[in-house]
Amino acid sequence: MNRQQDLAPVPAASIGAWDHEADVVIAGYGVAGAAAAVEAARAGADVLVLERTGSWGGAAAMAGGFIYLGGGTAIQTACGFTDSVDNMATFLNAAMGPGADENRIADYCAGSVEHFDWLVDCDVPFKAEFFGEPGWEPMGDQGLMYSGGENSFPFNSIATPAPRGHIPQMSGKKQGEASAGYMLMKPLVDTATAAGARALYDVRVQRLIVESDGRVTGIQARHFGTETNIRARRGVVLATGSFAYNDAMVAQYAPRIAGRPAASIEQHDGQAIRMAQALGADLAHMDATEVAIFIDPQQLVRGILVNSRGQRFVAEDTYPGRVGQLTLYHQDNTAFLIIDGDAQEDAMASLSPQLMMRPPTWVCESIADLEQEMSLAPGCLQATVAAYNEAAARGEDPLLHKKPQWLKPIGSPVGAIDLRESTGGFTLGGLQTTLDSEVLHVSGEPIPGLYGAGRSTAGLAAWGYASGISLGDGSFYGRRAGRRAAKG
Amino acid sequence: MNRQQDLAPVPAASIGAWDHEADVVIAGYGVAGAAAAVEAARAGADVLVLERTGSWGGAAAMAGGFIYLGGGTAIQTACGFTDSVDNMATFLNAAMGPGADENRIADYCAGSVEHFDWLVDCDVPFKAEFFGEPGWEPMGDQGLMYSGGENSFPFNSIATPAPRGHIPQMSGKKQGEASAGYMLMKPLVDTATAAGARALYDVRVQRLIVESDGRVTGIQARHFGTETNIRARRGVVLATGSFAYNDAMVAQYAPRIAGRPAASIEQHDGQAIRMAQALGADLAHMDATEVAIFIDPQQLVRGILVNSRGQRFVAEDTYPGRVGQLTLYHQDNTAFLIIDGDAQEDAMASLSPQLMMRPPTWVCESIADLEQEMSLAPGCLQATVAAYNEAAARGEDPLLHKKPQWLKPIGSPVGAIDLRESTGGFTLGGLQTTLDSEVLHVSGEPIPGLYGAGRSTAGLAAWGYASGISLGDGSFYGRRAGRRAAKG
Repeated sequence: MNRQQDLAPVPAASIGAWDHEADVVIAGYGVAGAAAAVEAARAGADVLVLERTGSWGGAAAMAGGFIYLGGGTAIQTACGFTDSVDNMATFLNAAMGPGADENRIADYCAGSVEHFDWLVDCDVPFKAEFFGEPGWEPMGDQGLMYSGGENSFPFNSIATPAPRGHIPQMSGKKQGEASAGYMLMKPLVDTATAAGARALYDVRVQRLIVESDGRVTGIQARHFGTETNIRARRGVVLATGSFAYNDAMVAQYAPRIAGRPAASIEQHDGQAIRMAQALGADLAHMDATEVAIFIDPQQLVRGILVNSRGQRFVAEDTYPGRVGQLTLYHQDNTAFLIIDGDAQEDAMASLSPQLMMRPPTWVCESIADLEQEMSLAPGCLQATVAAYNEAAARGEDPLLHKKPQWLKPIGSPVGAIDLRESTGGFTLGGLQTTLDSEVLHVSGEPIPGLYGAGRSTAGLAAWGYASGISLGDGSFYGRRAGRRAAKG
Repeated sequence: MNRQQDLAPVPAASIGAWDHEADVVIAGYGVAGAAAAVEAARAGADVLVLERTGSWGGAAAMAGGFIYLGGGTAIQTACGFTDSVDNMATFLNAAMGPGADENRIADYCAGSVEHFDWLVDCDVPFKAEFFGEPGWEPMGDQGLMYSGGENSFPFNSIATPAPRGHIPQMSGKKQGEASAGYMLMKPLVDTATAAGARALYDVRVQRLIVESDGRVTGIQARHFGTETNIRARRGVVLATGSFAYNDAMVAQYAPRIAGRPAASIEQHDGQAIRMAQALGADLAHMDATEVAIFIDPQQLVRGILVNSRGQRFVAEDTYPGRVGQLTLYHQDNTAFLIIDGDAQEDAMASLSPQLMMRPPTWVCESIADLEQEMSLAPGCLQATVAAYNEAAARGEDPLLHKKPQWLKPIGSPVGAIDLRESTGGFTLGGLQTTLDSEVLHVSGEPIPGLYGAGRSTAGLAAWGYASGISLGDGSFYGRRAGRRAAKG
């Protein structure tokens, strides 16, 4: 059997007997699949979730658990922050582009408060406490944090800053422990189970089963190595995650993230995207990726980040994922953090989790020496530091508008942390869907019976990102997929 | 009829009578289609080319006519340049990436000299004269020019510089006249016609016709508004160009070029890509684009180009298309050319075509005044110019390695040309094909009977570009498609 046959749609007429049946069949039991299962089951559908591994969870259960929500959620209000649907949309339109889908952003923002309440109703716990330190995650069990650079330049000049990273509470969370994503997934799966959703584990989805009129009516899969046909009486929901671990797809669609997957899982092999493409499904934003930069934000804010020409290029106190994207895509994955001895000590003594605290690669007494040590063009770093120091002494950063609290002239001894090739991330592109999570054919029409959500679909982010966007749009449009599929 | 039906493959069994028949049916009579027609006809196939407009030519006939070739062509040798297959591949691997396909580049370079000879054999005229001035095109009828920054930093430190832009000769070419691309297309079409290829004009291809076993055996089209079925006994070649003029596709796949198509034609609506996607065809490098920046290179080399932070970011004497890409993608489409009065006068008096010569947007007596006039952060441009001038006085550019011949301290009066939103270009991504121009299914297997070449396919460029790559890989892999399709 050649590989093309492995993906080609199976005619429903060729199926002798169905091994399993349900109204709604969901591929993947991560956050999108779980949200779809809850809503489809609550709508009265008989639901079967197919999961490739031995347990529910997906990438979500391993994640930091951020869910990007706003517009005035109960937690935002309890923590004293004001937000609105329009303000949230203004931020996302600026931060998720260029190329972000304004209609999807408007839709997501309009439903955001309701979605938070729905999560709470599913028993996802949130503690009404704000974490205000620089970091990738809260140090403790705080439920709210800035997660997209909302309070940093340029976004703080575009929309009113409001933190929108909502983090499920882990009782007694300690550093290095299992992530808050588990505290999102456990209640959702419990809710789905209580609503009647069933699950089948160790099932690898292979091909879509299609009626002669083009309607998707099932999935062919391998279950412990045996070919298995699963009938979907009302619809199939694809929710198997991204293509970050499919080397061929990454080379074709997002080559710059090749070789550096992060915050992803090996199961993210693009299979759902491939199966739907074989039916003529359309794609969007396949080149978009989340990008982490492997350094502690407590260090980032206290130094200045320069490129291979010794030039600053981003406010160091913004969302570190934005620093990662700009480093990988705009600076050829080359950056150096210039940080003096006092700042390094302050960072080490700070409240952050310190998991990514890094020692300087070079340490010198003067910037001139450091520049030479780093093999930068003569004078370029000296000019950058002189300009930064002069303005920082006045509490200003006219070039990049880092917030005054982090402005301090760089002294001696001074170090540089080599951040070349220090990025990683996951892919954000995937199947093109409607706001009702219908998978679109290249003709622009929905493929009957086929729905999708989560990172196997193109979501809110076209180029930018904020922590919580994937669990956010995955759960939000997962619900839509479940409701829509249950209607048949 | 809904749009999905418009693209869905047509079962061959449903075709009552064929309106036209040929061994090889080629969609699109631009450079890829013409090259395919020549080779298929020479291989003994009965060839029919379907062209949407009233005449052959496509984007190629309107283009500057550059064909990227090297490794020691007759013209390179006659003009005194040494090149080799390996040297050419080293350059292309550096300049066409990140993400460029090394196998395709090796294949293209190995066949480059033979391809040049083939073009000459098809009566495409080339004059053995080198044009060495900065510019987008030669001023006269010279046949050879640098077209990818081969002799500029960083590429001149990676591979031995050799010009590879080969330009067909127009007798008595004058500024503003019809382009050299016509002198490529006319001989190719004449050769195809002499070899027996037929053409049908005003035909819009709509859907692929497919046997029950998946083999493509024809095209359904509209001919003067009438549905027309064209049988391809041996194979179909898709060569209808890019998707630069399909707004929906650009929004999904290459949003940053949205609203700024250039060097493209309205017929580039992605139809061939769509038709093949409906069959499960795979794509590659859909986000890649060529980017022109609308200014005369004679000005570029004599000034310094800075971003919104007053920082230089590219050697100003490199391929201007590279300047365009870096400006659009790395600098948020924001650049300013700082040029003093003498340099502007020199540029105006230079040998360039001067079609894109631009006046300064602001003129001041000092850099300090200019910086303020431009609303840049205080001091940033002054530091940049001071560093540039100090080194330029010594004939050096340690930051970006502009060639000494263009280094001259910037004096007074000094102007700045506003190059914000001054870019445009066309898309480079498309169908994923084998080196034999077979269109690949998402499974990784060729789709039987379906071939593709030109800008409806992903070619040599993943991210970078050089003038002549599109006519180069379009004609090169067009030939492959014609030969492969003729075999059936």
